[in-house]
Amino acid sequence: MAGTPLIHSVVVTGANRGIGLELVKHFLQMPNPPEAVFATCRDSAGPGARELRTLASRHPNLAILQLEATDGKSVQAAVKSAEARLAGAGLNLLINNAGVMPPCPLESATPAGMLEVYNINLVGPMLVTKAFLPALRTAAQASEHQGLSCRRAAIVNMSTVLGSLEKTPELYSSMPVVSYRCSKAALNMLTKCQAIGYREEGILCAAIHPGWVRTELGGEQAPLTVEESVAGIMTVLGNLSEKEHGTLLSWEGETLPW
Amino acid sequence: MAGTPLIHSVVVTGANRGIGLELVKHFLQMPNPPEAVFATCRDSAGPGARELRTLASRHPNLAILQLEATDGKSVQAAVKSAEARLAGAGLNLLINNAGVMPPCPLESATPAGMLEVYNINLVGPMLVTKAFLPALRTAAQASEHQGLSCRRAAIVNMSTVLGSLEKTPELYSSMPVVSYRCSKAALNMLTKCQAIGYREEGILCAAIHPGWVRTELGGEQAPLTVEESVAGIMTVLGNLSEKEHGTLLSWEGETLPW
Repeated sequence: MAGTPLIHSVVVTGANRGIGLELVKHFLQMPNPPEAVFATCRDSAGPGARELRTLASRHPNLAILQLEATDGKSVQAAVKSAEARLAGAGLNLLINNAGVMPPCPLESATPAGMLEVYNINLVGPMLVTKAFLPALRTAAQASEHQGLSCRRAAIVNMSTVLGSLEKTPELYSSMPVVSYRCSKAALNMLTKCQAIGYREEGILCAAIHPGWVRTELGGEQAPLTVEESVAGIMTVLGNLSEKEHGTLLSWEGETLPW
Repeated sequence: MAGTPLIHSVVVTGANRGIGLELVKHFLQMPNPPEAVFATCRDSAGPGARELRTLASRHPNLAILQLEATDGKSVQAAVKSAEARLAGAGLNLLINNAGVMPPCPLESATPAGMLEVYNINLVGPMLVTKAFLPALRTAAQASEHQGLSCRRAAIVNMSTVLGSLEKTPELYSSMPVVSYRCSKAALNMLTKCQAIGYREEGILCAAIHPGWVRTELGGEQAPLTVEESVAGIMTVLGNLSEKEHGTLLSWEGETLPW
């Protein structure tokens, strides 16, 4: 099957910077890149999406979609636009990458802050997934591949080891981000529910911890470059199978405890 | 120390029915009941709190507090009233029991529904805990007891095995309550963060799964009576120590996986 792209189509949310942008670059640089790479961001015309627009001018298989994950109308419009371009071909891979991590030690956690972070990190991915579900189902049904894989149909939620209850004792003091941790523990639960709900339809679901990465979100002290993290994630994506369905994996492919 | 109450003061939220009401009854029926039992509910004057008002007329150590856990002003007013009655004595035990579990399979989960359930099940307990923290600290500091226990100072969040990622595969199909599951996974994470944040102050933090109980929330098919569940919970509360700090325990005292 040389010459056949491994993944025909992929959506990456929050793709104008950091891990999202790097994922888009890696997909475009594959030996057999996807026929359609959809990079979504909130302000696709703004200065923050300049690098993405430059990429799109060089790669005709890259389409930028304006998408605010917490706004149902915006999500619907983006999906409609993606479906038009896919022309019935279905979507192989949805990567819910957009998210926020404001500082939030216990003593300064507020109701508004907790709800806002939950809305962005949990409700957003849920809405986007529901909207792309018909396209994912189409891909799963039409696929020549059996079992579960990103070549067939997959939902990947960018999560974090900071959402792991088991790992909290060793990581809390250096990263007291309570609103983020709670939202990501919930996102792991959503991933688990999706894994059970969509298994029979042939859609793989997994959560990935990208490592602590030097991005706007991760900060300057982070040990990993975004290239290192995303190179690892790309390998993990390529290897996802039934075994990894419904799990939380590190960028190195290690299964993390809940 | 015969004759000394094990717990001098306790707050139970959502105490007008179900597990909350039964907890209040059990505290009042202890051989050495607490000197102050605070039973909070949203509508303390309404028909739903009749049984609680009857109890209060017979037990002078029971005080009913109007408290809407998601409303900062309501929480502050309730805490002020409780502190006045405690007269500087501090609070030994806070049980965040109030919560909701609407039906919510994946396909009918909505942003508004996810946010509302998170607000009630996660943000409410967080707000109530922060507001009672000074009284809990007072009790922890003044206590003659060393280590962690409900006799000294404790925060107990009523959680559920349905918030356990590990247990989701075996329980999802019979209880597809996605908004509840996500909010409770987050509440378990909050409990873990509180356990780390408050350990040095001598405040025990734990989450308890009450079992599947025949209440308005649990429904009529549930195998456990509220009396069976709460009798178990009372034993668990009495035994809570350093070992159980930051864990999720069943009403039978079993440690549940995250």
